[in-house]
Amino acid sequence: MSALLETIDRVRRDVCALHAELTRYELVVWTAGNVSARVPGYDLMVIKPSGVSYDDLTPDLMVVTDLYGTPVSSLSADADGAAAEWENPALSPSSDTAAHAYVYRHMPDVGGVVHTHSTYATAWAARGEAIPCVLTMMGDEFGGTIPVGPFALIGDDSIGRGIVETLQESHSPAVLMQNHGPFTIGKDARSAVKAAVMCEEVARTVHISRQLGEPLPIDPALIESLYDRYQNVYGR
Amino acid sequence: MSALLETIDRVRRDVCALHAELTRYELVVWTAGNVSARVPGYDLMVIKPSGVSYDDLTPDLMVVTDLYGTPVSSLSADADGAAAEWENPALSPSSDTAAHAYVYRHMPDVGGVVHTHSTYATAWAARGEAIPCVLTMMGDEFGGTIPVGPFALIGDDSIGRGIVETLQESHSPAVLMQNHGPFTIGKDARSAVKAAVMCEEVARTVHISRQLGEPLPIDPALIESLYDRYQNVYGR
Amino acid sequence: MSALLETIDRVRRDVCALHAELTRYELVVWTAGNVSARVPGYDLMVIKPSGVSYDDLTPDLMVVTDLYGTPVSSLSADADGAAAEWENPALSPSSDTAAHAYVYRHMPDVGGVVHTHSTYATAWAARGEAIPCVLTMMGDEFGGTIPVGPFALIGDDSIGRGIVETLQESHSPAVLMQNHGPFTIGKDARSAVKAAVMCEEVARTVHISRQLGEPLPIDPALIESLYDRYQNVYGR
Amino acid sequence: MSALLETIDRVRRDVCALHAELTRYELVVWTAGNVSARVPGYDLMVIKPSGVSYDDLTPDLMVVTDLYGTPVSSLSADADGAAAEWENPALSPSSDTAAHAYVYRHMPDVGGVVHTHSTYATAWAARGEAIPCVLTMMGDEFGGTIPVGPFALIGDDSIGRGIVETLQESHSPAVLMQNHGPFTIGKDARSAVKAAVMCEEVARTVHISRQLGEPLPIDPALIESLYDRYQNVYGR
Repeated sequence: MSALLETIDRVRRDVCALHAELTRYELVVWTAGNVSARVPGYDLMVIKPSGVSYDDLTPDLMVVTDLYGTPVSSLSADADGAAAEWENPALSPSSDTAAHAYVYRHMPDVGGVVHTHSTYATAWAARGEAIPCVLTMMGDEFGGTIPVGPFALIGDDSIGRGIVETLQESHSPAVLMQNHGPFTIGKDARSAVKAAVMCEEVARTVHISRQLGEPLPIDPALIESLYDRYQNVYGR
Repeated sequence: MSALLETIDRVRRDVCALHAELTRYELVVWTAGNVSARVPGYDLMVIKPSGVSYDDLTPDLMVVTDLYGTPVSSLSADADGAAAEWENPALSPSSDTAAHAYVYRHMPDVGGVVHTHSTYATAWAARGEAIPCVLTMMGDEFGGTIPVGPFALIGDDSIGRGIVETLQESHSPAVLMQNHGPFTIGKDARSAVKAAVMCEEVARTVHISRQLGEPLPIDPALIESLYDRYQNVYGR
Repeated sequence: MSALLETIDRVRRDVCALHAELTRYELVVWTAGNVSARVPGYDLMVIKPSGVSYDDLTPDLMVVTDLYGTPVSSLSADADGAAAEWENPALSPSSDTAAHAYVYRHMPDVGGVVHTHSTYATAWAARGEAIPCVLTMMGDEFGGTIPVGPFALIGDDSIGRGIVETLQESHSPAVLMQNHGPFTIGKDARSAVKAAVMCEEVARTVHISRQLGEPLPIDPALIESLYDRYQNVYGR
Repeated sequence: MSALLETIDRVRRDVCALHAELTRYELVVWTAGNVSARVPGYDLMVIKPSGVSYDDLTPDLMVVTDLYGTPVSSLSADADGAAAEWENPALSPSSDTAAHAYVYRHMPDVGGVVHTHSTYATAWAARGEAIPCVLTMMGDEFGGTIPVGPFALIGDDSIGRGIVETLQESHSPAVLMQNHGPFTIGKDARSAVKAAVMCEEVARTVHISRQLGEPLPIDPALIESLYDRYQNVYGR
């Protein structure tokens, strides 16, 4: 098997398996959340098929698309110059594929993207309100506020553009798309899933804290130092 | 086996299995929620028996009734003109059967009905307050507000009539019966269960969003366009 | 085996198994909740041992006591006049045994008692506030308000007396002991467990409803009619 | 095998297994929580490795360190004067190890330490607000208020010192470190885990109670008597 086909196999297994983390942490109901990953070294990505229950996902149901979201099942020349072919399922990729694809086209360091409607993050998004950084674990993981992206309708590049423009101005790997829900990114799909889990966790904790008063702010310089240590010194 | 008996078998298996989604998504406790389905092509429906724990449900415990909620175990002439007989359990159908039956009699396109007391939807129902459409996923699934139906007592057709009159004026497949809880409908039982899951999800998310301020409204024309795309273009 | 010994065996199996419902519905953490049952026809009861994790409960660890909470492992004469002996574990009965025992002594129709610190019911109890009947399912199960009992310390009959005096003036099988938590009763242990599950469910739903406004009241005459139908006509 | 090696084996198994209680009670997400235990009779402790998922923990991945948090894999003389060697994994101990170690150095009766970011306890910590004792189970377990410790950054002894100084002035085995989360202690690791579970439970219950009004205070003398009975008479 060619190196490309082996890579596609591995990425499909990873993307499939990571959906179990979305259900384990109750970030999704029914079929409303999706994980994707870039195929390293190629202008290809792997994403959940549309409308399939999490219980029924298998690696070969994961859809391989180009970076415009169009399903692709062969390359005329892989890295070694050989032709490669693989099977795609007879299923559409997730209806959020265009947004994932836009991120991969415009953020070359991003290897994974996750979208959910996780409850507390979406509740902040519905108010169009950023989550203030009042927890040391938020300093570690997000390096500050979790920002809000614009209201955007599905159907063109508006959602993808909103995600990219918002994340490029922030340490945060998570953005709350207004009235919609969170998108998260990472160097790979597992990191993007971790960001989705931690985003919901801090969205919930800060929400609950604010229900009975104002959380104490953390000095921005200390947030920067927490973030720097966690990302660099601590070696994550 | 006649086509009718095969159909009844299949519908009983489906209805039985779908109750597991109610417990999986924690929409019900003890025995307080029920799924029914129309038997396609006949004036028959299949519904949960009364007072049986979800763990103990089996397909043959599902009760076959006519569209007035009376248990029926034979037809003198099925679609092929042959007589057909099946066994019903020695159990009453759910105490909510009259409401399900009323819906099937008055909404011929409805193939499935679900009733729960799911926490957040019931909390809105207790205030008699409709859930405003402030999430794109609400636009997709409900096409606007989730409406409130009248206060109605069990025992006659009041609940069924309240459900039908409220749903006929709305895109929404869910209605919150005042002081009582949600009823949802669908083209089949699985769709009605999905509506019950999504109804609780948006009831919870909008509730939580409103705890700390007002969610941002979505322009009704955009809601209409989300709904139209999701129901038609997207092909659900 | 004598009829008494068979009965004790059965009651121990039931009481042991019913603790799994407390964990399933997340009414308890660690070891902080307990189920007991009267041994029908005798001045004996069966209750959870103290300090044992729910995972480690087995029927033979359930403690048989008299109706003053003292462990008992023989009777000189059972119903047939024969002597009977059984083994008790080398464990104390639950530290709440005195309260359970008081209830059995003073409410002869009660066959089961449950105590938990379930979150929402205990939150109402901490404010000393009764739960208003604003849900049809509360009308069915509780026939009105869930009342608050007095503040009482462990160590004598204060808790038991508070439970009995409060429940004797109410339809409700649940009482919220102030600053403490709910106790529920039933004709048998399973009914008392159901009351504990439903008590937490309505405590949560009414709490959540009230977070964003006032739930609509239900006319007391309609509550009475719901209760009457559910308890009598409907045959529960 | 020497007594020391047997003890290390046992402590590693215990510490590993107790992490399952953190996930069971949903006190942690991803890898953000840790349990440690003192090795009785030695200046050694055992703690979770850094960055390993709870599903993947095994006893031999638990890291043995000295009481300054430095991994140690041999002693030149154990209690019997014999040399002892064991294997440590090629993993760093938890990034919170310095705080655990500080506690063991300064509180000789402490045999176990737990750190989580459990949601409700962390929400109180973010406001820098102690949890008032308004539940009898809080009197039993905590003997009063659950106190707040200072804001402290990771990297030196500030967190450990804040924990110890706060706990030394309180009955409570739990402290809420400001903007950070709870640390709990116990005579052994299991007791510290129990304190972490009960801390989140009372943090949640008191939070929910306060959402709709003020919980009723309990007289401090009665709290003292509840605590005294539970810790001494009742024999915990």
